[in-house]
Amino acid sequence: MKHIILSLCALLCTWCASAQEALGESTLPTSPEQHTNGTVTFRYTAPKATQVTVSGDFSAEPLPMTCNAEGVWEATTTPLDSELYTYSFQVDGVRTIDPSNVHTVRDIATVSNLFIVGGERGDLYSVQQVPHGTVSRVWYPSPTLGIERRMTIYTPPGYEEGKGRYPVLYLLHGMGGDEEAWIALGRTAQILDNLIAAGKAEKMIVVMTNGNAIQQAAPGHCPEGLYKPQFKLPKTMEGSFEQSFGDVVKFIDQHYRTLAKREKRAIAGLSMGGFHALHISRTMPKTFDWVGLFSAATMKGENEAFYADWDVTLKAQRDNGLSLYWIGCGTDDFLWKMNAGFRQKLDAMEFPYTFRESDGGHTWRNWRIYLNEFAQLLFK
Amino acid sequence: MKHIILSLCALLCTWCASAQEALGESTLPTSPEQHTNGTVTFRYTAPKATQVTVSGDFSAEPLPMTCNAEGVWEATTTPLDSELYTYSFQVDGVRTIDPSNVHTVRDIATVSNLFIVGGERGDLYSVQQVPHGTVSRVWYPSPTLGIERRMTIYTPPGYEEGKGRYPVLYLLHGMGGDEEAWIALGRTAQILDNLIAAGKAEKMIVVMTNGNAIQQAAPGHCPEGLYKPQFKLPKTMEGSFEQSFGDVVKFIDQHYRTLAKREKRAIAGLSMGGFHALHISRTMPKTFDWVGLFSAATMKGENEAFYADWDVTLKAQRDNGLSLYWIGCGTDDFLWKMNAGFRQKLDAMEFPYTFRESDGGHTWRNWRIYLNEFAQLLFK
Repeated sequence: MKHIILSLCALLCTWCASAQEALGESTLPTSPEQHTNGTVTFRYTAPKATQVTVSGDFSAEPLPMTCNAEGVWEATTTPLDSELYTYSFQVDGVRTIDPSNVHTVRDIATVSNLFIVGGERGDLYSVQQVPHGTVSRVWYPSPTLGIERRMTIYTPPGYEEGKGRYPVLYLLHGMGGDEEAWIALGRTAQILDNLIAAGKAEKMIVVMTNGNAIQQAAPGHCPEGLYKPQFKLPKTMEGSFEQSFGDVVKFIDQHYRTLAKREKRAIAGLSMGGFHALHISRTMPKTFDWVGLFSAATMKGENEAFYADWDVTLKAQRDNGLSLYWIGCGTDDFLWKMNAGFRQKLDAMEFPYTFRESDGGHTWRNWRIYLNEFAQLLFK
Repeated sequence: MKHIILSLCALLCTWCASAQEALGESTLPTSPEQHTNGTVTFRYTAPKATQVTVSGDFSAEPLPMTCNAEGVWEATTTPLDSELYTYSFQVDGVRTIDPSNVHTVRDIATVSNLFIVGGERGDLYSVQQVPHGTVSRVWYPSPTLGIERRMTIYTPPGYEEGKGRYPVLYLLHGMGGDEEAWIALGRTAQILDNLIAAGKAEKMIVVMTNGNAIQQAAPGHCPEGLYKPQFKLPKTMEGSFEQSFGDVVKFIDQHYRTLAKREKRAIAGLSMGGFHALHISRTMPKTFDWVGLFSAATMKGENEAFYADWDVTLKAQRDNGLSLYWIGCGTDDFLWKMNAGFRQKLDAMEFPYTFRESDGGHTWRNWRIYLNEFAQLLFK
């Protein structure tokens, strides 16, 4: 009977050009190729190109590639630390992705390839042989904003099996991001699955919202269609999203088996999302007991009425008591100084907080590290 | 206060090269650009290239592009019908995606860009201002296969609100595909949302499984990591998946509010998935009452014991009675003849079925059309 299958495959393989294309098996070289010594080789076929380089977060400068007799350009890195890396090629100055690697990720308006070097940190960001939570894209009504909105929700392994109730971490993206950012670039599901399996984090629900108040959903997932994402949108840092956050919490407590009390709710965000977490938590002190500011924009926003009283509300938040107010920032971050100023402000009002200084800057590498560390502290 | 935000944006925009990259705003031309007359213009910057073409399912042959003085290559289509299209560029013979368009989709081992020309069919495949169902990635145990497995589940709008129970459509992918295929290329969520909103389809749960019995999950979502997908895998058409399908139905009926009876269960698939639907439905005649074979491989598989009795089981399925046995195939499909032979077999045994002949071949264009038509017939 094997010949039937083989014939079918042969037929399928030749049925048309688009099928051939779908296989992606034409003459593509292996790329990226990870070597046992930790180096990684990239390859790109471009016999007529005059210069090809590879850029990625594994190297400050693009790596020059050299072309062999078959027209395949190649470059090999130095040994890399265990980490998730993104990269792209520049072919005669034109940025392109690696056709040999189907694993891509979108960061705002740019699609890059990714690969993971295994080991401690890379393994944490990888799908392991452990119980997996469920990841859902869910629409909820926001009466405050007057629109239906989309969010990404992680429920931990076992959620569907029992009747137990769970704490909730609300996790907010940065400027230009959306409800796809944390799950894709932040590897939230992998980090939580792996921390929970190792007994390092409590089982929790993670709610990843869209922090752009004018958006219903990420580009391509909203009625505006397949448009190009923008970095700066109207109404991102002027109180609209912060003031609509009660809609999110209400929906989650109504539709999920949550522990619907302050001690079992955390809110954290990166960059603009840290700004949102700061202002949401100070204006909803009875709602959140655990706060994380990752490379946050620790400043007032555009709306005088909403931000003017931040000293007063921060003091009320302090007096109300918090289990954790966690601030993480990289020493190379362009918001480092702003964060230092905010910490002085907190010090001056004797607002207790935990500060995590890391190396590096305003990068997803740091935000994954912060999520990993912050998640382990929660609800204990 | 506006100057604070503007300064932050300025800061954010300049913080580092990777951020610049994330914005994708360097000097990229607009592409694709849809015109009011239905034509579409593609643009690609490559000043040093000697030949650039654009290929897609809107044209049998690649369209030659011409280069302007700024090094931007350009081509414009003839007016296109309303449809979802995928495309790529060939730069001096090297396939690449459009860096101006972040909307991509993976078909087995190839990443392409997509765009939608609005109108009747394009609108059906687009996110509209209608109530949206939830799309979840869920892991389930398969005792039969001895592994944990991932699937994609659509629950209709309102599922989370009430206590109602729903019928279930099990929807199976083709060779080389996985549990991401129907939701990404098949636009299942958009089609169902829009049909339900228009009152054309019943509210139903749609379960999109992974039909490769050796796989836990799609590439990148399984412990094997970020590997390159393959077209042909072991154990795809030899009974393993079919015989494990009871695990799926059991999990769904246990974890979702289903109408857990034959009249409220449908199974359909494309190509290899049609093969699976054929063989699962004939061996589980008490489970499925609605069957859809889309461009199906209507043949026996590699396992003598499992496939030998297909005449007997098909007759039992006929005698058992079915609400619908729906066969769709395109006149250019390489499986057209095989389907004609299968219909003769059914005719000979007086097995009632509905046949939908379409133009075109073994393409997602047809499978989306079949899903649209099939879904409207179900559970009525």
